[in-house]
Amino acid sequence: MKVAKFGGSSVANATQIKKVCDIIRTDLDRKFVVVSAPGKRFKDDIKMTDLLINLGEAYLSETDYESTLIHIEKRFAEIIQDLTLPMSLLEDIRQTILKALHSDVPDNMKMDALKSIGEDSSAKIVSAYLTETDLTSHYVNPKDAGIIVSDEPGNAQILPESFEKLYLLREREGIIVIPGFFGYTIDNKLVTFSRGGSDITGSIIAAGVKAALYENFTDVDSVYTVNPTIVDQPKEIKTLTYKEMRELSYAGFSVFHDEALIPAFKQGIPVAIKNTNNPHLPGTFVIAKKEDKDKCVVGIASDSGFSTLYVSKYLMNRELGFGRKLLEILEDESISFEHAPSGIDDLSVIIRERQFTPAKEAKVIERIKNELHPDTVSLQHGLALIMIVGEGMMNTIGIAQKASTALTSANVNIKMINQGSSDVSMMFGIDADDLKPAIRSLYQVFFEEQQN
Amino acid sequence: MKVAKFGGSSVANATQIKKVCDIIRTDLDRKFVVVSAPGKRFKDDIKMTDLLINLGEAYLSETDYESTLIHIEKRFAEIIQDLTLPMSLLEDIRQTILKALHSDVPDNMKMDALKSIGEDSSAKIVSAYLTETDLTSHYVNPKDAGIIVSDEPGNAQILPESFEKLYLLREREGIIVIPGFFGYTIDNKLVTFSRGGSDITGSIIAAGVKAALYENFTDVDSVYTVNPTIVDQPKEIKTLTYKEMRELSYAGFSVFHDEALIPAFKQGIPVAIKNTNNPHLPGTFVIAKKEDKDKCVVGIASDSGFSTLYVSKYLMNRELGFGRKLLEILEDESISFEHAPSGIDDLSVIIRERQFTPAKEAKVIERIKNELHPDTVSLQHGLALIMIVGEGMMNTIGIAQKASTALTSANVNIKMINQGSSDVSMMFGIDADDLKPAIRSLYQVFFEEQQN
Repeated sequence: MKVAKFGGSSVANATQIKKVCDIIRTDLDRKFVVVSAPGKRFKDDIKMTDLLINLGEAYLSETDYESTLIHIEKRFAEIIQDLTLPMSLLEDIRQTILKALHSDVPDNMKMDALKSIGEDSSAKIVSAYLTETDLTSHYVNPKDAGIIVSDEPGNAQILPESFEKLYLLREREGIIVIPGFFGYTIDNKLVTFSRGGSDITGSIIAAGVKAALYENFTDVDSVYTVNPTIVDQPKEIKTLTYKEMRELSYAGFSVFHDEALIPAFKQGIPVAIKNTNNPHLPGTFVIAKKEDKDKCVVGIASDSGFSTLYVSKYLMNRELGFGRKLLEILEDESISFEHAPSGIDDLSVIIRERQFTPAKEAKVIERIKNELHPDTVSLQHGLALIMIVGEGMMNTIGIAQKASTALTSANVNIKMINQGSSDVSMMFGIDADDLKPAIRSLYQVFFEEQQN
Repeated sequence: MKVAKFGGSSVANATQIKKVCDIIRTDLDRKFVVVSAPGKRFKDDIKMTDLLINLGEAYLSETDYESTLIHIEKRFAEIIQDLTLPMSLLEDIRQTILKALHSDVPDNMKMDALKSIGEDSSAKIVSAYLTETDLTSHYVNPKDAGIIVSDEPGNAQILPESFEKLYLLREREGIIVIPGFFGYTIDNKLVTFSRGGSDITGSIIAAGVKAALYENFTDVDSVYTVNPTIVDQPKEIKTLTYKEMRELSYAGFSVFHDEALIPAFKQGIPVAIKNTNNPHLPGTFVIAKKEDKDKCVVGIASDSGFSTLYVSKYLMNRELGFGRKLLEILEDESISFEHAPSGIDDLSVIIRERQFTPAKEAKVIERIKNELHPDTVSLQHGLALIMIVGEGMMNTIGIAQKASTALTSANVNIKMINQGSSDVSMMFGIDADDLKPAIRSLYQVFFEEQQN
């Protein structure tokens, strides 16, 4: 049994929904289908979830909400008509919206109920269309499915008791279509996951039913070895491990909603990332373990927008607790940090730039000066981090040499290297202005020259 | 005015002491002379300080101490006779020893008093010989000089009030010879510095008299770019900054007693490291700052005997305080660490191997397992650290490339890289078995190929 999750672009209109149903029909092992809300049909289109949020905000602020409501209904109507489904389905969706809108509940509960309607309606539509094309299919609400969550509106966490109940879904007849993005508390309140939460639902269902495979259908053919906006048509990644996936996601590889895959990973369920528009392509497999012979560099991720806080003090390493005190000042000022590589008399702290305002920056520097009396303290912006990721890197001779040669030949100054803390990645810090030439040069060395 | 400090091998016998006096005579700016206790004359010789410690220990444990006493007197007698100095000097030294031995004071005070007699006698002998050769010279006891220290036997710390008094030494006539290694508390107790403390005395005097130069005479021509037991006749370092010196000392560059130079550094006094046996050679200068144009890799230090404690846990970076808890377990078990490079889900802690017994190792691993529930925890021994040191490294393109190419070409696997925390060094972790080929290859790349 497989779980197939389809993202927003896969259910954006009737044409896409037909592709989804074709994909299901092609392999009836795809017993569990999880769907997102209708996404963008073109660049400047508005996603259904955003329309629903606009509706709720307009209603709560007592401004005109009718026009948004009409906009939403029109969009569902178009999909339903194009799929030649009965208009009673539209009326069902309409009633669901009105009920959520006018219900007498706290604002955040009302917002969660409204936000969930995109996914809920997609599931109803997809299930109806599957039935229409002679497959046995059932829309199953997350409550009936058994997705029991914590009472944190907009940030629900799955509760462990869900999984036992979800396993019983295996016994149900036909194809089960479940809306992503939300669950119910023990006392029956609808609560949504964080944004992008349909990936979470898919992963939870896969874990619950102990699926053989969790397929995540998106609009890209695969995960790429490097950011395709920097390198033109980069090579695709065929397989990567959970750990590699996680290290890549960390530094700007935005294939997935960050935590989404955890439930599937915990059960060791393999994940396939595929394209609804090219379902015949193999896509990318994310698996628990790799054979030793397949271990090599799988991808290069990068992200900019980091700052380096550099503090030096002669004999720092004799001063007990110096590092701790520095980190406490940052904690006091609500600044979280990414890494804190330390030398003998020096400490660098890598921090996301967006956490600083000029005033906060001045305050932090001032406090460090007054409380720690360092010889030097400075804060530099414009750092980019590059992660070279691959299982077994720690035991491969020459990876650091290849990487640093690539950066040197691109005339890029390496400001920071952190290798050895993780056995699947190596991190370089460079000037953000050097990022494109750096990535291109690394790509060439690791993915193009290998072929020769 | 200069301060010249002579180490144990420079005052080991009459021949060496004559060299010392020749050096002083050559440049009468060498107004302040600090001396160690007589050192080894040949490989299996016993240093005077060790003889004095043996004497004290034998006396305190009420075993035979007479034979050691005779041994000590004989050695001083030989020096004094060979220099044709009056035998009253020997009697003076003899009385000092007996007084210390039989004084009615706590054991640690008695030991400190005995241990100081090597330096004290050297100073008396050198001063007497300078006078004998028609120079005006005075032996000045640390109490009279103004070296006021904390009451920590065997680990005295200089008190700030010393420096003002020391400055007055400038007014004294002739050459001032001061024994190294000890000072006096405010209430007149003799207390020694930590072992090798003559370097400390020299540095303190240099700071106190605001010397133009602090010359540290040893038995090597200079500081070498790399360990001469690994690379045959390596290049000499002409100048290095305090900061470079400190980074080199950290990883096994044992030119100096670690903290010895701090007083001189704090006053910005340049230090020259010279050879008593080749005083015409320039030696190595240690200075506060370097011109930008002179910035490059100055030396490669290395040390083995490190262990890596590796802990990984999926989603570690979401677990607030994970790293802190790990370090607390180590602190609890009285284990100090060198570095703690961190990844997203991984943390490595570099620890000196000698801190572990098999029992302690098992306990630490057990506690980490029970208290932190990691996915993996392991402790690997046999790590060597290499430090490549040079001011301005952070802004030089290609240093990492050169270093990693050198290691790769020597077929050495790089287990760890830490660059960017310090702006004057780059650290590599490798298997201790790979140390020699690694250092040789790095030496070649950084110091031999440059010449071509």
